[in-house]
Amino acid sequence: MTALAVGAVKETATGERRVALDPDAVARLIKAGRSVLIETGAGTAARFTDAAYRAAGADVTTRDRVLAESDVLAAVRCPEAAILSKLHTGQTLIGLVDPLNHLAEMTSLATANVTVVAFEFLPRTLSRAQAMDALSSQSSTAGYRAGIVAAEAFGRYLPMMITASGTAKPAKVIVIGTGVAGLQAIATTRRLGAVVTGYDVRAASRGEVESLGAQFLTSSVSEGAGAGGYARALTADEHKTQETELAAALTGFDIIITTARVPGHVPPVLVSAETLKNLRPGSVCVDLGSSDRGGNVAGSVEGTTVVTPEGVTIVGASQLASDLPTSSSEMYARNVLSVLASLAPSAEIVIDAVDEIHQSIVITHAGEVTNALVRAALNLDPLAATDAKTPEETSAA
Amino acid sequence: MTALAVGAVKETATGERRVALDPDAVARLIKAGRSVLIETGAGTAARFTDAAYRAAGADVTTRDRVLAESDVLAAVRCPEAAILSKLHTGQTLIGLVDPLNHLAEMTSLATANVTVVAFEFLPRTLSRAQAMDALSSQSSTAGYRAGIVAAEAFGRYLPMMITASGTAKPAKVIVIGTGVAGLQAIATTRRLGAVVTGYDVRAASRGEVESLGAQFLTSSVSEGAGAGGYARALTADEHKTQETELAAALTGFDIIITTARVPGHVPPVLVSAETLKNLRPGSVCVDLGSSDRGGNVAGSVEGTTVVTPEGVTIVGASQLASDLPTSSSEMYARNVLSVLASLAPSAEIVIDAVDEIHQSIVITHAGEVTNALVRAALNLDPLAATDAKTPEETSAA
Repeated sequence: MTALAVGAVKETATGERRVALDPDAVARLIKAGRSVLIETGAGTAARFTDAAYRAAGADVTTRDRVLAESDVLAAVRCPEAAILSKLHTGQTLIGLVDPLNHLAEMTSLATANVTVVAFEFLPRTLSRAQAMDALSSQSSTAGYRAGIVAAEAFGRYLPMMITASGTAKPAKVIVIGTGVAGLQAIATTRRLGAVVTGYDVRAASRGEVESLGAQFLTSSVSEGAGAGGYARALTADEHKTQETELAAALTGFDIIITTARVPGHVPPVLVSAETLKNLRPGSVCVDLGSSDRGGNVAGSVEGTTVVTPEGVTIVGASQLASDLPTSSSEMYARNVLSVLASLAPSAEIVIDAVDEIHQSIVITHAGEVTNALVRAALNLDPLAATDAKTPEETSAA
Repeated sequence: MTALAVGAVKETATGERRVALDPDAVARLIKAGRSVLIETGAGTAARFTDAAYRAAGADVTTRDRVLAESDVLAAVRCPEAAILSKLHTGQTLIGLVDPLNHLAEMTSLATANVTVVAFEFLPRTLSRAQAMDALSSQSSTAGYRAGIVAAEAFGRYLPMMITASGTAKPAKVIVIGTGVAGLQAIATTRRLGAVVTGYDVRAASRGEVESLGAQFLTSSVSEGAGAGGYARALTADEHKTQETELAAALTGFDIIITTARVPGHVPPVLVSAETLKNLRPGSVCVDLGSSDRGGNVAGSVEGTTVVTPEGVTIVGASQLASDLPTSSSEMYARNVLSVLASLAPSAEIVIDAVDEIHQSIVITHAGEVTNALVRAALNLDPLAATDAKTPEETSAA
């Protein structure tokens, strides 16, 4: 029996600096009896050299060879069409593939008999899924990075400073949405000495926020917890109440970090144009909800920093995990290894039809689109369609 | 008796974001019976609005009116020629004027009967000078900023992280030169959770470094303390020993922050091209010694970030105080107020010829270049020239 060959190529999404396998993961795969192929330069942007991959036991080679010879292709984001078109029967693609935004690609890959495994559909509340949870690991690096980016964009000290030249008050920070990213942003700005407040519609967040030494801002809309460990979508009235309460509270803060993403939907605006005008000049908003469909902050532009006429800096921070590429890649690679350990305990991929994790994360297999949500989005089961729900929960990323 | 009029214009040095007076300083001056003129937009880059200056009591007006009507012009850096040429008899210019690099300007200003006061010549060890110490306040903001910039340039977490997706070790940071900036860089990277080491040729630094929770790297060149609270210049042999010892130690660090500036001289190279090759890919050097005459790190470029072929990021960080413009301006303005309180206790500037501080910081007065070091540099006292020393101490900024 030949060894399972695991491969990774250079990411093709614009600005993406992560890589799906780091040299440490390569060494672990080799030790477990797999072989590994890495495209030349795949890790450069994440500061992993070809030499480091070779030292770990990888075959560092051309993209075409990686694509031709890998049984499993690990990717961070959905590869470009030129790569997908080269995948062939029996191969498995594992990544943050974002299937609901790549429906045509999912259909083609099913037809080509490629197995697609997407981290987005992991049942995150299962404890044995935690080591596979790439959304969490990448939200964690993004949240840390949000704290650094906020400090970088702010013209003042974050900590209190008492010096011969005067005293600086600590910066006041509020983090809206205290999921994994929000909690890391709280921890990081707290480390830097800021006075930090957390806000979330899930009342259960209070304990997590307070355990980090931050205050919890109470919302009257406090029962937003939904299925699967995500926040649920708010009603229109709840949104209105939330917005009014927040707007009143926000004017007292120097730095606002927002983390509300809704997979497949327009992000909720948590900081309105009106609120922005009431912030002090020099205030900073870091918008992790930023996307090509807008963000959590009025006027935020994905991937760009803008300054309002009133002197408020808005960072459209959509790629923060990629901006901490080394740690993000290291954590991500461990998630890949955990999924592989479950899918391929020996030398081949075996999908277990009754395993809750496999059922959720496998999108295509054996020539079919198998995932219920993706099938529903493709309208493949017209009679069952009314039962399938798309994941439209407000995700505090 | 009319009130002393204090003014500030928009800084003219390239990339300079600070302003010499902030609205709080304006309010204090007004309260003390002075009048204040601020150029429209002077504080914009530091996030102070014209409205805030007006609310504090300033007359926000044109540059020409500020220059015509101010008794005292406060500046951060030496203004451009177009401004200097408009200064007139009886006016006083206060700033980080860098007189030794502006000798022609000092001569012209003396001829124009303008009094020039330069922070660079403050006797820093006098306790009553501490509130005036702009070099310290700006080194402090620069040092904090160095920690933020290092975290921003590094592809990994600074703190240790223990997560379901694996454990990240804390980053290892070394700060070379533990003056004011170096100590703040140590404090900031420590706050962020890094494991930090300080290095300085002044053995007396050990206590300060260790009190911040950092380790002190012992050098066999340990008696570099010089006059005036600066480090003294090292001999060629001492430099060689220092370089060899450091090169051996540096390969174990992820982040290197260097702070050795020598006023008027080429900065010492503390991280050689050879050492850079031995650093791990992904390592970061933040070079506060960076200048148009090179820096402390081989290959560093002032104001720019470069990545070596081996994957080491070098930040040529020459303007870090300006990059934290709000806090830097606030602290700087307090230094200006302290100098003013000494020079103009009532409604006019009175230079006290026997005051050690006045003697040191006043460069030109009553039509003459009065400062001994600047006179020596201009060769104005040929017979006394052999006694005058230029400040060529290695300054850990």
